[in-house]
Amino acid sequence: MKKANNSFDEIMEWVLSAETIALAGHTNPDGDAIGACLALGGALEKAGKQVQVILEKYADKYQLIPNGHLVCAAEDARLPELFLVLDCGDEGRLGDAAEIFQKAAKKINIDHHESNTYFAELNYVAAKASSTSEIVFQLLENRLPMTAAEAAGLYAGLIYDTGGFRHSSTSPETMQIAGALMGYGIPFTEIYNRFFDSRSFSELKLMGRALSNAELLFGGDVVCSQITAAEIAELGGSSKELDAIINYLKGVLGAKVACFFYEKTETDVKGSFRGNDGYDVCALAQKFGGGGHVKAAGCTISAPIAKAKEMVLAEVEKML
Amino acid sequence: MKKANNSFDEIMEWVLSAETIALAGHTNPDGDAIGACLALGGALEKAGKQVQVILEKYADKYQLIPNGHLVCAAEDARLPELFLVLDCGDEGRLGDAAEIFQKAAKKINIDHHESNTYFAELNYVAAKASSTSEIVFQLLENRLPMTAAEAAGLYAGLIYDTGGFRHSSTSPETMQIAGALMGYGIPFTEIYNRFFDSRSFSELKLMGRALSNAELLFGGDVVCSQITAAEIAELGGSSKELDAIINYLKGVLGAKVACFFYEKTETDVKGSFRGNDGYDVCALAQKFGGGGHVKAAGCTISAPIAKAKEMVLAEVEKML
Repeated sequence: MKKANNSFDEIMEWVLSAETIALAGHTNPDGDAIGACLALGGALEKAGKQVQVILEKYADKYQLIPNGHLVCAAEDARLPELFLVLDCGDEGRLGDAAEIFQKAAKKINIDHHESNTYFAELNYVAAKASSTSEIVFQLLENRLPMTAAEAAGLYAGLIYDTGGFRHSSTSPETMQIAGALMGYGIPFTEIYNRFFDSRSFSELKLMGRALSNAELLFGGDVVCSQITAAEIAELGGSSKELDAIINYLKGVLGAKVACFFYEKTETDVKGSFRGNDGYDVCALAQKFGGGGHVKAAGCTISAPIAKAKEMVLAEVEKML
Repeated sequence: MKKANNSFDEIMEWVLSAETIALAGHTNPDGDAIGACLALGGALEKAGKQVQVILEKYADKYQLIPNGHLVCAAEDARLPELFLVLDCGDEGRLGDAAEIFQKAAKKINIDHHESNTYFAELNYVAAKASSTSEIVFQLLENRLPMTAAEAAGLYAGLIYDTGGFRHSSTSPETMQIAGALMGYGIPFTEIYNRFFDSRSFSELKLMGRALSNAELLFGGDVVCSQITAAEIAELGGSSKELDAIINYLKGVLGAKVACFFYEKTETDVKGSFRGNDGYDVCALAQKFGGGGHVKAAGCTISAPIAKAKEMVLAEVEKML
């Protein structure tokens, strides 16, 4: 059985009594982990604490999140009195920071993942919150100093995890918090554009090729596309730039299932799947050793891309 | 000199004393015009009024806005006691509905365009509002019955005009209103996806081709692409499906100016331009008889596409 949440007041008591505080998010940190850590870190620094934010090197687009001066690598971090973990479902997600976490005298875990294991001494997990940044806003509000820098970090985390207020995790509370953050005069349009409307030229060209390769199958029920390693190389890109494509395929009107394939290596093919209501693409992915969510899943298939596609589409046909 | 705004109370007094009410938005109605009209129309119907919403035939994606049963064409509309105009800067934007508007005993104009001419007897123009739907929410709040149907219409208008809360017109107030609307249990994810993440298969293929045709010019300062009438025909699409493309080009990291060209006819080429801070693409468009905003503008050039592109790029080079 899970432990109950501690209160913000209990958490704040520990926070205010510590002189040195380390914060950390999960490995391969995303907008929410970075935004929440740098916002809370900045507020704690403004409250006179010695703060270190332990984060792995993160993607360029997150560099516009303020308070980056607080970031340090796990190997450079000093042992803090208090270790605050944000946006991590379990201790394993801390990566290299886990060692310092274990040695810290006091440990706090704040998160919004349903699966959180309540692995710290004080824990606050709100699975209904859109993001950890949303929880950090509630924790900070009227308790710690906050400037536009911290507001921008929280806004970044909030839009990252809600896909720009579009996912069903977005609540009236989320919108009110976003409005309050905008009230700090943050460059929200710039953050939004950077997260959702910016791409390298090679990413644009890869998208162009992948969409050009798209086919409508089974009378329009399925939209499918693929890109080979040779095409990726030809366009000067990398497979890391292919994440967005499945979502464009998914948006085709009338299609019930969307599939995208790309060659990871000569023998390994990554398949990404999306399904409308009533089409369980997680079950589809599981047939090939993958998994995910009912509406969004993926797998890796050891086969040439044409064969991998053929095998998956044979299973997709059974779903229709 | 512009007239001052009337108050919501004055407007509501006229509204409540009328038995028959016509509402209308601008010609070629968009998400805000439709959303505001159908939301206010629905609320007035629920308040016992005889309501007609005069709107031109609108795009399929707007069909998910509730209260569509209220819509009638201008030629079928009866003369109402009160005519409420929404989201129209001037009387001319009413199109065929203008004739009925002129004959109506009482006229009200509610809008958020800076250029509004205060053309009715009662006027309420809030240029800082993100959308007319935002103003209609403020008018309705605590004054008229509202259900999820009306809330969905206002949400639709609000996200349409803010580009999904990303444009600089989005304010803390906008976010609070959006949150309040979500509280009615509206299918906001569905509306959002339908407006911003849905496309026909031909639109997907046109996007694929246009992005594949993209070039990086002037050392990466300019991203440019084009699509010919022959290509549009080959992919089974129409030029109406090309609107989104310039925004993808604009998003290329490092590019200061983005240009997109397509053939409207054999001799007419449409050019669309976007510029970062410091690059006035309105001035660029004006050199070719077009116009728009500093950061987003366009023009039509009577020349073969290769020549049109060459002429524009020569001017772009001078801007760098």
